[in-house]
Amino acid sequence: MMKDDNTIQPPVAVAQWMPASGDGLGLLRLLDQTRLPGETVFLNCTDTPAVWDAIKRLVVRGAPAIGIAAGYGMVLAAQGLAGLGRDEFIEQLETAGAYLESSRPTAVNLSWAVRRVLGRAKSSQAGDAWEIAAEMLTEARAIHDEDAQLCQAIGREAGPVIQQHSGVLTHCNAGALATGGIGTATAGMYVAHGAGHVFRVYCDETRPLLQGSRLTAWELQKAGLDAVVITDSTAGQVLKEGLVGMVIVGADRIAANGETANKIGTYPLAVLAARHGAAFYVAAPYSTFDMSLPSGDDIPIELRDSEEITEGFGRRTAPAGIETYSPAFDVTPAELITGIITGQGIITPVTPENVRAVIG
Amino acid sequence: MMKDDNTIQPPVAVAQWMPASGDGLGLLRLLDQTRLPGETVFLNCTDTPAVWDAIKRLVVRGAPAIGIAAGYGMVLAAQGLAGLGRDEFIEQLETAGAYLESSRPTAVNLSWAVRRVLGRAKSSQAGDAWEIAAEMLTEARAIHDEDAQLCQAIGREAGPVIQQHSGVLTHCNAGALATGGIGTATAGMYVAHGAGHVFRVYCDETRPLLQGSRLTAWELQKAGLDAVVITDSTAGQVLKEGLVGMVIVGADRIAANGETANKIGTYPLAVLAARHGAAFYVAAPYSTFDMSLPSGDDIPIELRDSEEITEGFGRRTAPAGIETYSPAFDVTPAELITGIITGQGIITPVTPENVRAVIG
Repeated sequence: MMKDDNTIQPPVAVAQWMPASGDGLGLLRLLDQTRLPGETVFLNCTDTPAVWDAIKRLVVRGAPAIGIAAGYGMVLAAQGLAGLGRDEFIEQLETAGAYLESSRPTAVNLSWAVRRVLGRAKSSQAGDAWEIAAEMLTEARAIHDEDAQLCQAIGREAGPVIQQHSGVLTHCNAGALATGGIGTATAGMYVAHGAGHVFRVYCDETRPLLQGSRLTAWELQKAGLDAVVITDSTAGQVLKEGLVGMVIVGADRIAANGETANKIGTYPLAVLAARHGAAFYVAAPYSTFDMSLPSGDDIPIELRDSEEITEGFGRRTAPAGIETYSPAFDVTPAELITGIITGQGIITPVTPENVRAVIG
Repeated sequence: MMKDDNTIQPPVAVAQWMPASGDGLGLLRLLDQTRLPGETVFLNCTDTPAVWDAIKRLVVRGAPAIGIAAGYGMVLAAQGLAGLGRDEFIEQLETAGAYLESSRPTAVNLSWAVRRVLGRAKSSQAGDAWEIAAEMLTEARAIHDEDAQLCQAIGREAGPVIQQHSGVLTHCNAGALATGGIGTATAGMYVAHGAGHVFRVYCDETRPLLQGSRLTAWELQKAGLDAVVITDSTAGQVLKEGLVGMVIVGADRIAANGETANKIGTYPLAVLAARHGAAFYVAAPYSTFDMSLPSGDDIPIELRDSEEITEGFGRRTAPAGIETYSPAFDVTPAELITGIITGQGIITPVTPENVRAVIG
């Protein structure tokens, strides 16, 4: 759907602040992503422990979306503490922030959002805790809005690229469900679709956690796009048959030379795209770049638990006691990336100089 | 386990003929592969419908193993008809054969085995149906023995190749569970292990039906090999890290120019192996070659049902109504194949001339 101001609306809101009709500021309403694609269920969070639990249980996932939920989580904390005097109020907010951060310690956006909303409280000139809480809500909403705008900016750059192709392929979920807006890898798809372009999106199911089939296919279908689910192993055949002219994925972290860490299975897609003359794009905002890391070799590779492979969906699919090897992501070298779409310009070709020119 | 005559025993027998202690010839005992890896359960088949059902339900799968089961299935048919006169006996056997073939119409070995055992009955000089049935059992056993010997021959050629590497990677199940012996892709692994070579086998889980994690990992673990299960998407990372020096897979069909159709996901492995300087071998007996097809382009690509992807784990993992694209196999070009190990020599480099020289 296109609004008057030319922005495209996401098919779903992962997090919404619901203003209170009576006393208080309101509550946080989260889409429960653990129930997708079977059920669309929302979870109302009225206190910090509810938000902590939602992040822990992956009710909300995707780095930007986690940050947004955490920002609102701080407002819920403030709301529960509004009877206190200023010093004790701030002190208790610090405790609540540390608690929220402990839900998923490795998510950078989580900590960043908590600190940002907390900082607003600390620097507030207001004397009353309710007034400070209201300022915190403004800050949490700003985090949310800025993320939505980042997605729009990426979509404006990626849309015309998508429009050059009748088929595109994506991996994992770098979609609306991972952000406060229309996603990163999906942003250009929503923009191209809004402009009337007709194309198919092949969604890798993305083992082990199936974010592609459970989440990406769901949100694209909901928005009326033509989504097709394939096993990860089928991407090579899709490229070989020429069914897609480009691959577009999100990123977990991008080094200063443009080497990109993303969900395991991304690197093989880049190799196959190059072999078949298809474009390979990464879509990610400036915050995904880690300019302190000279190359992708410096990005640590997290190993996931065996159970995600051996009993991922309620049924054991490998022999008891078998070993697994389950890196969460792989690193794609810069020479296999056609361009990185940032919302501040497309970095292409991907060189350290061009990364610096766009990201600074 | 190595026997005195230098052959390696498979870790498990997928099909066994159990001679009767009293009247009759006996029964067919099948390992129920639908219960693996959780349970090791055997199914006794005493008539043709039981074998038909076992093939249909994938209790027994893998082209050679299906052929073996079907051969014994014809003996069970004969046993049930042994009271008839010769003409009616043969006529009823024809009907039983057509019925067995209908269990999985596309499996070439199934039809071939049925015809072979039926042919033995037709050409028999014996007057008594029991005598003919006994000859048919001899023929069914010959099919079984010949397949076991083919696997041994492949193992003798592949073993020394495996012994050059400390890590190998395989896809799907071209193992003991698919044959009457030690498998095709796995044959060299069992031989190398029997010779005391220490190495790891990375098993792609092989979506959608997970033959790698459910079957290959199970049989290798049972035989005491060092098996590691990975998602299909992780193979690129395993190759990039240099954890394996070679990939070895089976084949569904090989064209006269050496282009090889095998389980979907095989082709990307060959591309990745080439990029990382790893060897890429196919292991397959002469019966897998289809010399009537000049190239892999002539091999028809079977499409599988959506449900294997969308509800493969007993729970729906994609939105209702979503489209899928699920080709059962892909074709690997000859230039990406280091060699085809046939049991009658290793075809390398893979050229039409070299295929003809070994296969004829």
